[in-house]
Amino acid sequence: MLKIKDISEQGLLKRLHRFCPDNIIGDDGAILPTQPHKSLVVTTDTLVDGIHFSDRTTSPEDVGWRSGAANLSDLAAMGAFPIGITIALGLTGDTPVTWVEQLYQGIYDCLKPYNTPIVGGDIVRSPVLTISITAFGQVEPSYTILRSNCQPQNSIVVTGVHGASKAGLELLLNPELGESLTEAERSSLILAHQRPQPRLDILTILWQCLSLDSVNGVEDRKNPILVGGMDSSDGLADAIIQMCRASQVGARIERNQIPIPYSLTKLVSSEQALHWALYGGEDFELVLCLPTAYGQKLVEKIGVDAAIVGTTTNESEILLIDSLGIYPNQQLTLSQGFQHF
Amino acid sequence: MLKIKDISEQGLLKRLHRFCPDNIIGDDGAILPTQPHKSLVVTTDTLVDGIHFSDRTTSPEDVGWRSGAANLSDLAAMGAFPIGITIALGLTGDTPVTWVEQLYQGIYDCLKPYNTPIVGGDIVRSPVLTISITAFGQVEPSYTILRSNCQPQNSIVVTGVHGASKAGLELLLNPELGESLTEAERSSLILAHQRPQPRLDILTILWQCLSLDSVNGVEDRKNPILVGGMDSSDGLADAIIQMCRASQVGARIERNQIPIPYSLTKLVSSEQALHWALYGGEDFELVLCLPTAYGQKLVEKIGVDAAIVGTTTNESEILLIDSLGIYPNQQLTLSQGFQHF
Repeated sequence: MLKIKDISEQGLLKRLHRFCPDNIIGDDGAILPTQPHKSLVVTTDTLVDGIHFSDRTTSPEDVGWRSGAANLSDLAAMGAFPIGITIALGLTGDTPVTWVEQLYQGIYDCLKPYNTPIVGGDIVRSPVLTISITAFGQVEPSYTILRSNCQPQNSIVVTGVHGASKAGLELLLNPELGESLTEAERSSLILAHQRPQPRLDILTILWQCLSLDSVNGVEDRKNPILVGGMDSSDGLADAIIQMCRASQVGARIERNQIPIPYSLTKLVSSEQALHWALYGGEDFELVLCLPTAYGQKLVEKIGVDAAIVGTTTNESEILLIDSLGIYPNQQLTLSQGFQHF
Repeated sequence: MLKIKDISEQGLLKRLHRFCPDNIIGDDGAILPTQPHKSLVVTTDTLVDGIHFSDRTTSPEDVGWRSGAANLSDLAAMGAFPIGITIALGLTGDTPVTWVEQLYQGIYDCLKPYNTPIVGGDIVRSPVLTISITAFGQVEPSYTILRSNCQPQNSIVVTGVHGASKAGLELLLNPELGESLTEAERSSLILAHQRPQPRLDILTILWQCLSLDSVNGVEDRKNPILVGGMDSSDGLADAIIQMCRASQVGARIERNQIPIPYSLTKLVSSEQALHWALYGGEDFELVLCLPTAYGQKLVEKIGVDAAIVGTTTNESEILLIDSLGIYPNQQLTLSQGFQHF
């Protein structure tokens, strides 16, 4: 098998050029046209072999897809559409050349629906495989989504379902867990882990809700509706807590409103399923905070793929509550989420 | 000594926040205002411990400075002024916390003269220290410098001196080499290696030369003067060859015109000094290709810190020539430069 140490840097670059547009290759940097009067949004994300991915659960295409998706999801969480990415790769001499090509294929496939080019990068030798992607996007300044934009008495809207990615990972690590599931349920959970979708589709719907004739009949560009938000890459609980802290608000989350895939309850207890939904992470869904009328409008427009899970408060506590009265109130905590060190 | 594994991710981020502007911290991405009608330029560069830097020759501040300078130099090579950078760090648990702070200090110090903020980043655990910087800049589209912009019979202008960085590295590795040098000469060469300056200062002078009243008296924005160029980070020979290949031109480089610091000739033979100047790399100077009248104007305006080293031709050969007739013509080659694999 052809390895990185067997070919020259130029030879490797030649193989990877087919994933990049012709006109932006070969200079010290890449040049991208920007739209006037929009802000640039930049985000970066690094994956290290053995820590953030492993051959046991993730093919090179999936590593590529997931790292692309993580970056586009960060842009979506700011309200920005992507305009390009760069890839910095650290490769060992023993890395198979096909591994690198498959990685690029996965990134390319993830970006394609959004017409987002790979515009450049850097490839260096390293004792450990490392992938660092930087993505740039553009946002209309008045539509920028910030963690700190949440106001008390806002609705907290989540897209998609939560806990699916964690369940998919568990199924890959322990296939015997999935005996009670149908084949469709199994592959849907595994796909949620391997091929998460950045929720850029939500932005257009969100802007429709915020603009002219939507709720009050008139859009006020000088006093735009503030949207708080982030993605749930580190878990739903983490997202809610980070947003509340940045905005200095509290929250009451209704445990029965958290959208959990039905198949999860066939896999584990409902308590465990809720735990995965809150703390599992990597679902890459959006968690948005906006005035109730707009929140309701948004959920109506998105349909079954979104839900209002709670309300922000002007208290400091972030509580998981049970309107059915079975469980006592519970504090959401950060400590059960993913720790980087 | 406090190590990365002893503090939380939040604790580390808190220590690093002082190097970043207050208003762009804490979201999934950073937001940067852009100037309308300019193009975005993006470049990325990765350094790996033991391969691109080592504690023997480089303090953490210097590693930071050099990685910042390498990225700003890539922007300068495209004609772009920086607007921000992101930093992706892979850290081992044993990395001292002060090492990371000093790294950031070095990056910060390098960026400061250009009012360029550190706008974000990602910090992950890794078995090997890795630093990946992505820099963003903006360029007036008609002033974009491309490798492929060289025309035959252009002047080839280089800024600064060449070979100094390589000499500085050799002095750090073998201090006894420097016995014939004055202390000022020694530290000047070492500084060239440890604290290279991105040549963003040249851009303003270049644009003055290209604009109104400069040579022909009128600036023609629809048919701008094409400037070919790149930086000499991989060596002067590499830069000339890459530009010639991208532009499908040849070149004749006058060996006696290559600016080599006087102290180098006290350190090694003049042949060795020329070799370091051509193939040593990491001088981060600009190599520019433009019509003779503009090339002369540029060198006049810059003063002693620039020189015309040769001319592009419509042949295919890239030759090192000797107008004094002592040395025979010689082909410039890529193979003696830095190989990444």
